[in-house]
Amino acid sequence: MSTAPETPATTTPSPGVTAAAGFRATGVTAGLKASGRPDLALVVNDGPSQVAAAVFTSNRVVGAPVVWSRQAVSDGIASAVVLNSGGANVCTGPEGFQDVHATAEKVAEVLGVSSGDVLVASTGLIGERLPREKLLAGVEAAGPALSADGGPDASVAIMTTDTVPKTAHVTVETPSGSWTVGGMAKGAGMLAPALATMLCVITTDADVDAATADSALRAATGTTLDRIDSDGCMSTSDTVALLVSGASGVAPDPAEFAEAVREVCARLARALVADCEGATHDVEVTVVNAETEDAAVAVARAVTRSNLVKTAIFGNDPNWGRILAQVGTVPVEVAAYDPAQLDVTFNGVQVCRAGGAYEDRSKVDLASQREVHVVIDLHAGDASATVWTNDLSHDYVHENSAYST
Amino acid sequence: MSTAPETPATTTPSPGVTAAAGFRATGVTAGLKASGRPDLALVVNDGPSQVAAAVFTSNRVVGAPVVWSRQAVSDGIASAVVLNSGGANVCTGPEGFQDVHATAEKVAEVLGVSSGDVLVASTGLIGERLPREKLLAGVEAAGPALSADGGPDASVAIMTTDTVPKTAHVTVETPSGSWTVGGMAKGAGMLAPALATMLCVITTDADVDAATADSALRAATGTTLDRIDSDGCMSTSDTVALLVSGASGVAPDPAEFAEAVREVCARLARALVADCEGATHDVEVTVVNAETEDAAVAVARAVTRSNLVKTAIFGNDPNWGRILAQVGTVPVEVAAYDPAQLDVTFNGVQVCRAGGAYEDRSKVDLASQREVHVVIDLHAGDASATVWTNDLSHDYVHENSAYST
Repeated sequence: MSTAPETPATTTPSPGVTAAAGFRATGVTAGLKASGRPDLALVVNDGPSQVAAAVFTSNRVVGAPVVWSRQAVSDGIASAVVLNSGGANVCTGPEGFQDVHATAEKVAEVLGVSSGDVLVASTGLIGERLPREKLLAGVEAAGPALSADGGPDASVAIMTTDTVPKTAHVTVETPSGSWTVGGMAKGAGMLAPALATMLCVITTDADVDAATADSALRAATGTTLDRIDSDGCMSTSDTVALLVSGASGVAPDPAEFAEAVREVCARLARALVADCEGATHDVEVTVVNAETEDAAVAVARAVTRSNLVKTAIFGNDPNWGRILAQVGTVPVEVAAYDPAQLDVTFNGVQVCRAGGAYEDRSKVDLASQREVHVVIDLHAGDASATVWTNDLSHDYVHENSAYST
Repeated sequence: MSTAPETPATTTPSPGVTAAAGFRATGVTAGLKASGRPDLALVVNDGPSQVAAAVFTSNRVVGAPVVWSRQAVSDGIASAVVLNSGGANVCTGPEGFQDVHATAEKVAEVLGVSSGDVLVASTGLIGERLPREKLLAGVEAAGPALSADGGPDASVAIMTTDTVPKTAHVTVETPSGSWTVGGMAKGAGMLAPALATMLCVITTDADVDAATADSALRAATGTTLDRIDSDGCMSTSDTVALLVSGASGVAPDPAEFAEAVREVCARLARALVADCEGATHDVEVTVVNAETEDAAVAVARAVTRSNLVKTAIFGNDPNWGRILAQVGTVPVEVAAYDPAQLDVTFNGVQVCRAGGAYEDRSKVDLASQREVHVVIDLHAGDASATVWTNDLSHDYVHENSAYST
């Protein structure tokens, strides 16, 4: 298997959802956002396949679009995804659900497909109705604007507090031909621990069946989008959808396909964390030598969830004491380790060894580097896991205290 | 039972640990803090009883003083508590434990008691040794400074980022005479979910046995100090000790005694939250009509832990959508409820009813009030619980990014 390099090329942004053959997309301004910026995206699968899979937030309080889309994708088929920013359509009662239904009907009418094959995703404030007429007019405007190079426009229309659109793709060359997986995502706060306020659409022209698509998507999100944690706050709207056009005519090896989906999800996940509200550092917490992968994830999540760890990193302080204090909160039945054996490394400098101070913390220079890599060695097995987060800054407080007022 | 009024008298600060008869205390400057402020407190029980009980952090990474004091109090007897700010003595290895041992020995020598009856508690940075000679010289200086009205001085010497000392007491008049429970506490960050970086000493001249003292202390902390959550960060040093002198000669009814201890703990808990780092609002989250008290606590903790809820309150925004999003993260096996039945009230205004918008949020005026009372009705039973927290402000980020550098 040969893929594009791991590091996204920042000079040439990926076309995202239109990187793969068989897809058209667009982003238009429906007038849902007070700012007047684009706020409605439409992604259409022109086939020949209409296979689809999706994963959603595990929050028990979910938006009407999540209720609709869970049902719509349950047969493994979808023709289009319509996404809006400017309002999450959560806690909006039966009227909110009717807004979703009307939106799907309008997309179906414009595209000539069944409304039951239209997925809907919304992001923005909770608790306020969307203006239905503007939404439907936006869908009507999106129809003629659809194009095979509309991926970048779509990725812009789903932004909320995101400062940059997020797109990625991977093209795989095989003896029987090449195929592509591409995608776009939005999300900058409320990221965690399970895909929070994240809207993500992945498209592929590989020819895979619904079961392969579903298992590839679940495996990919489980180790990428599910392992980013901006602020420990789980959203009510997270949706990650995978649309399969099959337009390449190539039926890939399922493992190769899963790896390509994972790679696109990983790139989008990193892009989300890098753009988190007010972040000045991208933080990668890797737990090594855990008894199990679940134990490693639990310890990493405990650390990435800590405001004290995150404010210390904002202050460029490799504060291993706060790391150990968080590791100590993980119950023994979740992760085995001996507190007197814990090691902590910040960007390669082992500041803590065997549960105590080791290298001088002044050897760690966080001020000049955006990337912070924390490695925690539990000395309790051979499993490992990584969770990505960001620091907690003044700007996070500012954006989140001012957002809805 | 007749007690002092619920609201602490702010005009006359409580003497705290010397409010009850049979105790002497002091606070001195040992030179552990760079600021030159008082940093060592000593509280001595002159008896006739030497009964004691204590509860400690549930963190698996604990300071050497916690290891020592757990053992020292395990026989239900203690003569004194020595506390220092300026260093937590956590993750300091065998040498750190020897520092604790030497401190207890020095206190024993100065007071003429057994070192095994001396509790030690420390607060401050993790991972750095305390200067032993300064610590021991401080203990020597504290001995002659002990006095029956030294409670306020002791309460000042344990402060770290606290802006005010915290003391409280309750005097109970009974037909057989009066008795008192008093106490002091420190803590301003790292408060949660189990007594984080909280040092607290409670004293009483009531005559109760070790079992009564222990059960009263555990019950009291369980619904007060254990239910404040400043930042979701659990400390490595939390210690709450209860010393019993019996000097009043009155053996109270155990339930009355437990209630007095609970009241002192509740006042100290509220004082801790009110002084949390950078807080501009005191937030009380009450969950009502839960199936069980544990369910109510779990939901309340999920809400008080949310940075998005806390930043919204800092922005004076009664953002019930963020509240519901947090309620939704509590697994169904932990708390039963129907998302479509949830009600949320902010300071008496029902902004959310049956899972949707109700009263206009502009009717809630948070800007002019420090106290914010959020009531969440689960409509799932008749149990309730309250957890106290504070908002998340720029100053929290500032203090915690600059603290150790």
